Amino acid sequence: MEATVECLVERGWSGTTTTEVAERAGVSRGAQLHHFRTRGELVAAAVEHVGAESVEVLKRRAEIAEKSTHAVVELIADFHASDLFTAALELWVAARTDPELREQVLELQARLGREVYGLALELLEVDDTEPGVKDAVQATLDLVRGLALANQLADDAKRRAHVVRYWARMLEEQL
Amino acid sequence: MEATVECLVERGWSGTTTTEVAERAGVSRGAQLHHFRTRGELVAAAVEHVGAESVEVLKRRAEIAEKSTHAVVELIADFHASDLFTAALELWVAARTDPELREQVLELQARLGREVYGLALELLEVDDTEPGVKDAVQATLDLVRGLALANQLADDAKRRAHVVRYWARMLEEQL
Repeated sequence: MEATVECLVERGWSGTTTTEVAERAGVSRGAQLHHFRTRGELVAAAVEHVGAESVEVLKRRAEIAEKSTHAVVELIADFHASDLFTAALELWVAARTDPELREQVLELQARLGREVYGLALELLEVDDTEPGVKDAVQATLDLVRGLALANQLADDAKRRAHVVRYWARMLEEQL
Repeated sequence: MEATVECLVERGWSGTTTTEVAERAGVSRGAQLHHFRTRGELVAAAVEHVGAESVEVLKRRAEIAEKSTHAVVELIADFHASDLFTAALELWVAARTDPELREQVLELQARLGREVYGLALELLEVDDTEPGVKDAVQATLDLVRGLALANQLADDAKRRAHVVRYWARMLEEQL
């Protein structure tokens, strides 16, 4: 799973073949085929698996971090501006023009979306049955995805830190 | 230029060959090669050209639209959740793992980024030498890019309208 994500980040969707991943991971093609019939299945499983692991890492980081809104938004923004997002972006873009992959990725998108939304509520210690909370958290997640996109071709960490600080101040007022 | 963007939207980067675009546009390969030596050059030029045209369309729409912050943010968000963004996303993702294309796209990103930022200032009728304006406009643009991303695999217009309404209210307070 990690070799797949690594391969997507380094070589993109077009360079991520099942053969290349099997070589990187040091597993036989037979063993690989036993688990994943297609490149789409392999890549979707890898993004989901590494995504779930990353959510756990994020939770542990949040436990030892400062409890401020700013610290939480920064954690979520940095989590998105990561290799995992880059790998997911390769998968999402490929899925747009591949009908079979698209169905698979839409399901994955819904599951990951719900998980990240729930995690954001938990870390911000807010309840989305309160008025305005759902909108504020959704907007925050759209923002961090936009920031992650801006980080694809060049390191945008400095500007991102600035926007995150600005956003966190507003979010705190709203929540 | 339009045939190139159309091709990127329908078939993605991998399906956008110079031959395919020449056929769609009804021009000879010779004439095409005279202007663009590589697929990268063709696609970057098309995104820039159609981008500049779209900015003009957006300006004209803004002239006849309501002058509220909400109407302006909605225009900018819908402008991003368009075929042009989809085509640009294909180019951006391809550029990440192609060093030559990357240099070209980084320049294009800087130019388009400045243009859209300037346009947002103009439409919102704000001055970024005033405190807080630059941050607010940058956050708005990151947000609309995140919203555009969420629109790639499924129609997200309804949720987007909701987030736009929420953000426009906050932005109005900030500006």
